[in-house]
Amino acid sequence: MWLPEELVAELRARQYLWEATPGLVGMRGPLLDLARDIEQAIAGVARAETNDEWRVPSGIAFETLESAQYFASFPQWLTAASHLSGDEAMLERVAKSASPGAAARACMSPASAALSPAVCYHAYAALSGSALEGTSLMTAEEVCWRHEGDRFAPLERGWAFRMREIVCLGTAADVEEFRQRGMRSGAALAASLGIATSMLEATDPFFAPTGRGRALLQRLKALKHELTIEYSGGRQLAIASFNNHERFFGEAFGITLSDGSPAYSACVAFGLERWLLAFLVAHGPSQAGWPAIDATSCDEPVFQEH
Amino acid sequence: MWLPEELVAELRARQYLWEATPGLVGMRGPLLDLARDIEQAIAGVARAETNDEWRVPSGIAFETLESAQYFASFPQWLTAASHLSGDEAMLERVAKSASPGAAARACMSPASAALSPAVCYHAYAALSGSALEGTSLMTAEEVCWRHEGDRFAPLERGWAFRMREIVCLGTAADVEEFRQRGMRSGAALAASLGIATSMLEATDPFFAPTGRGRALLQRLKALKHELTIEYSGGRQLAIASFNNHERFFGEAFGITLSDGSPAYSACVAFGLERWLLAFLVAHGPSQAGWPAIDATSCDEPVFQEH
Repeated sequence: MWLPEELVAELRARQYLWEATPGLVGMRGPLLDLARDIEQAIAGVARAETNDEWRVPSGIAFETLESAQYFASFPQWLTAASHLSGDEAMLERVAKSASPGAAARACMSPASAALSPAVCYHAYAALSGSALEGTSLMTAEEVCWRHEGDRFAPLERGWAFRMREIVCLGTAADVEEFRQRGMRSGAALAASLGIATSMLEATDPFFAPTGRGRALLQRLKALKHELTIEYSGGRQLAIASFNNHERFFGEAFGITLSDGSPAYSACVAFGLERWLLAFLVAHGPSQAGWPAIDATSCDEPVFQEH
Repeated sequence: MWLPEELVAELRARQYLWEATPGLVGMRGPLLDLARDIEQAIAGVARAETNDEWRVPSGIAFETLESAQYFASFPQWLTAASHLSGDEAMLERVAKSASPGAAARACMSPASAALSPAVCYHAYAALSGSALEGTSLMTAEEVCWRHEGDRFAPLERGWAFRMREIVCLGTAADVEEFRQRGMRSGAALAASLGIATSMLEATDPFFAPTGRGRALLQRLKALKHELTIEYSGGRQLAIASFNNHERFFGEAFGITLSDGSPAYSACVAFGLERWLLAFLVAHGPSQAGWPAIDATSCDEPVFQEH
């Protein structure tokens, strides 16, 4: 078992991994090939659930996050895209400044879009106001942004990171069955990659003060599980989460079942750099030590359901 | 021949295309499958040049853009990532606001990273201060951001858009040969996809006032070409560009040849949504009208050099 700090130091030394600025990581060489193989294996789990794959937009409207009550839930993470205004005089001041980067940072217009904190909000926004005919499923892999203060660590906690989500909307029974299926296939995939994991009950880090009540309810009803790895030393890291939102997003976005009642939803989310890290923790930084990843997992589920 | 406005209306009606907010587009269904096939064909052109593929970070340091003299070149496009500060009282004010999205937009910290306006800056930053042994090549596909005022049009001009770049650093002869090769393979790929194109001399839209001189020099020395399509009606759209930077980036980032002199550089850039649009302009919005895209282009060059 390798520690993440040792792995990152080794990968940096080999020039397979670098940071543009804290929390923003680049990859190349065998590390990138491995990342893609793992991402394809995870995509295989998603494709066993649904063929409806989306490429979601690179940003999201503030109004969508408002509808999702994001600002009462996780405002501490919010990252947004702002731009320099087209004002010629201002642009000239920036261009002629002795430190134009610093001048530009301070001259941004108010942000006009948020950078997606999760993939699934795009699904609720797209289905907003619609009545579902039966169960609805989608999947997407996209870069998400969460600014977690100064806690950034390459592969473990990025400002920008890749997430694969599978989202299910339907009846209470449908979405909980989907979530349980996701837990089984997530754990099976980890085992097939030689990654030792535990499935633990969890809560979201909701923003105070209303958050304590929501987290308590989440735990009492066992609505969230996380698939975790444990480093030598005992520190844990979640690599996937399995979330039952009950009617929260159905109500927030006016998505109904055929009888007119709010739809239930659940999502299964894989943190892709964390899966890469978990694989490296188990197998080390050298390509020679990496077990082959089943290529068929690109098109077929990597596990068989019982 | 279809007009882009007709295509986009049709793709929206089929729910294959939507916008989260102006300039930020999502895709699904056969449109996404087609986009990926075209991206794989373009990746094939890149892989015929180099196996050194990078996944560049999702953002870039302001200092890197300063080194690249970006603020004297294209400050009008600059987009940056800013975040809410972790200050509890401020977060609570946002959360409790009647319009938390609007409150958050106005409460962002100064931007701490820029969103990449192009892929190639990451290559110069990574090679900064190094002495090259021979010609150096890399390729990457990444989301780039350019805020072009209110000129956004889906697939044609996005705030965020995907770009595939191939970057070459070396001697003057090396990089111009690379650029000429890129022009031939870009035009050949378009022809193989049934897209009619012209190769035109071009200039960058450098920011005034120093920009006019730089653009003039660019044209006089024929340092930039664009592969363009023409809509019925005569309007033109560039789908790829072929750029010789001479010693500009070698000098800016202290990248030298083995004799200690500044390296020359060139890049070939494909606007991926524009290639998708060009294919649709030629073949229409219905899958039935789309010619098959050679699957081998994933691994092999799609053309043979003479």
